[in-house]
Amino acid sequence: MIYVVIPAGGSGTRLWPLSRAGHPKFLHPFTGTSASLLQATVERLGPLTTPERTMVVTGAAHAAAVARQLTGLPEENILVEPSPRDSCAAIALAAAVIAVRDPDAVMGSFAADHLIGDPQRWVDTVREAVRGAEQGLLMTVGITPTRPETGYGYLRTGEPVDGGPMRPVLEFKEKPSAEVADTYLRSGHYLWNAGMFVWRVSAFLAELARQQPDLHAGVTTIAAAWHSDEQDDVLGAVWPTLTKISVDYAVMEGAAAAGRVATVPGDFRWNDVGDFHTLGEVLSADPDGNVVLASDAKTEVLLHDSSGMVVAPQAGRLVAAVGVRDLIVVDTEDALLVCPRDRAQDVKSIVDELKRRGAEKLV
Amino acid sequence: MIYVVIPAGGSGTRLWPLSRAGHPKFLHPFTGTSASLLQATVERLGPLTTPERTMVVTGAAHAAAVARQLTGLPEENILVEPSPRDSCAAIALAAAVIAVRDPDAVMGSFAADHLIGDPQRWVDTVREAVRGAEQGLLMTVGITPTRPETGYGYLRTGEPVDGGPMRPVLEFKEKPSAEVADTYLRSGHYLWNAGMFVWRVSAFLAELARQQPDLHAGVTTIAAAWHSDEQDDVLGAVWPTLTKISVDYAVMEGAAAAGRVATVPGDFRWNDVGDFHTLGEVLSADPDGNVVLASDAKTEVLLHDSSGMVVAPQAGRLVAAVGVRDLIVVDTEDALLVCPRDRAQDVKSIVDELKRRGAEKLV
Repeated sequence: MIYVVIPAGGSGTRLWPLSRAGHPKFLHPFTGTSASLLQATVERLGPLTTPERTMVVTGAAHAAAVARQLTGLPEENILVEPSPRDSCAAIALAAAVIAVRDPDAVMGSFAADHLIGDPQRWVDTVREAVRGAEQGLLMTVGITPTRPETGYGYLRTGEPVDGGPMRPVLEFKEKPSAEVADTYLRSGHYLWNAGMFVWRVSAFLAELARQQPDLHAGVTTIAAAWHSDEQDDVLGAVWPTLTKISVDYAVMEGAAAAGRVATVPGDFRWNDVGDFHTLGEVLSADPDGNVVLASDAKTEVLLHDSSGMVVAPQAGRLVAAVGVRDLIVVDTEDALLVCPRDRAQDVKSIVDELKRRGAEKLV
Repeated sequence: MIYVVIPAGGSGTRLWPLSRAGHPKFLHPFTGTSASLLQATVERLGPLTTPERTMVVTGAAHAAAVARQLTGLPEENILVEPSPRDSCAAIALAAAVIAVRDPDAVMGSFAADHLIGDPQRWVDTVREAVRGAEQGLLMTVGITPTRPETGYGYLRTGEPVDGGPMRPVLEFKEKPSAEVADTYLRSGHYLWNAGMFVWRVSAFLAELARQQPDLHAGVTTIAAAWHSDEQDDVLGAVWPTLTKISVDYAVMEGAAAAGRVATVPGDFRWNDVGDFHTLGEVLSADPDGNVVLASDAKTEVLLHDSSGMVVAPQAGRLVAAVGVRDLIVVDTEDALLVCPRDRAQDVKSIVDELKRRGAEKLV
């Protein structure tokens, strides 16, 4: 049984107007069932860990919602960030808290807002990664790419170790251009970086101390005060001083350069549910290829001579369409979105414009 | 000063979900101003008639709304049909009531739900038609066609009389196929039938007596009891027995065959506001060609990289679109419609489907 941290942050602006700053992506049931992405993430951890060893790191604004969605989790396992400090601080705090309790612990870090189509295969892959972590490596689970995707970062990998599935990660690559993504895909040496990590807390903290000594000192100080009367005071004093940086950039890239990162390629129908088009690809469609994301069964949808639609009728009203193809229609109480599926990435521009206009209530 | 009857019926199903059975097209401000189509119709009659000589024939369900929109009209000039009996009964009742008051009267009949871009020119054209009516002809105002429209009926006309604008109407033609409409347009002998009529009530009632003797007898009986204690009893008893038939089919086609119909071609930017595409053509657009039909100024519309849209944000919510072209988006409290402009005619199919499902509340 490993320890697990689930960083639950990010608002998912490309899923606006469903996903909002106040009710972000991971709290939504974008799973085809009534479970939220966060709940589905915890459920699929069942074979790997226990609720006592599972921690969620989330923002103050979402702590209550997380606590209510994850009733099986001990209260003290919901770590509340006083302010957003990016993924390195969140994951490092969890690692430091776990290390106090069990210095030899292996921990995994898995995003709260991804979908996995084949959970059993995912568990098997993580178990392979645990074996690498037990050897002292910082492991990532890379995704075997299926298309020249420009929206993800990539892992450049070396030759498999001992004929097994594990391979060294030579380099972390930023989101590529379409041309570069194409060469990555053809080469067979690149995996998608899905931000899934497995390591011994001691190995991770050692790398953190080497590359980000201030961050290491900060989370060590906070962890030392954890479960004491001073927990909140120390957290409140130290947290705002921590560097705002992603774990990839702060630790993993440097560790890869030092030969300390390896990966196990995964092929378990992973999806980051980044936008409504992707969501439409993952969830089950009717015979016309229309996907309806209904919050309740009473909502009526009337799609006449329409196909390839992604419709989210979340305001209890009739949504009627005639003669439309491959369109996203998201209907909420205070905002409506209409957008072609191939422009799903640009939904972010609406959120940007609303922020510019000061319409914070709608963001 | 002529008499005028405005038949205010028809629900405008192609303008669903704005136009409903309970709140039909003519009550809506589809005019680019705050005036409803009905109010605009009465306003443009100003130079031709007086409120005392203006009658509206409408269904029982809309009598109150009509009365409130037309505060200048005498109460007794709002004729309420006990049940829908199509246009011949409505117009014939008005003609019979007017004939009791003034047997030599000239009356016009103009739909409640059309838009006219150049009201002064329209008035001039109607005045030409009045001259024909004074000669005993049943006059129609035909519209000079600008495209091979398949959605309207046509008038086949003869050579101009005495070099004036007036021409005999040889035949009423049903809505044609695209091919036939094209030959109509090229020939120069066809006009659109816009359902605008001008005649002496005596001439119309004589033709009605000749072609539809039962209908004539019925409305004569009702008109004889008009303004008496028995008005409601007689109306209630006789009205349901009247033939349900359009005035074109019941009277005008036969009168044309008998050489008693003439027309004055009109060129005053007439529009029947039949669907949202047409509405988008008529109302003023922003530089990107987007037309917004807002019920109040507070409604926000955010059209990002979108053009040619017809948007009706009538639920007080933000309507946001990204990367869409030539789409109709109509947002009301209980129903949302999304449809391409070139499928605007097919909105009717949604209404048909809702009726089939028994969702009368939404129709």
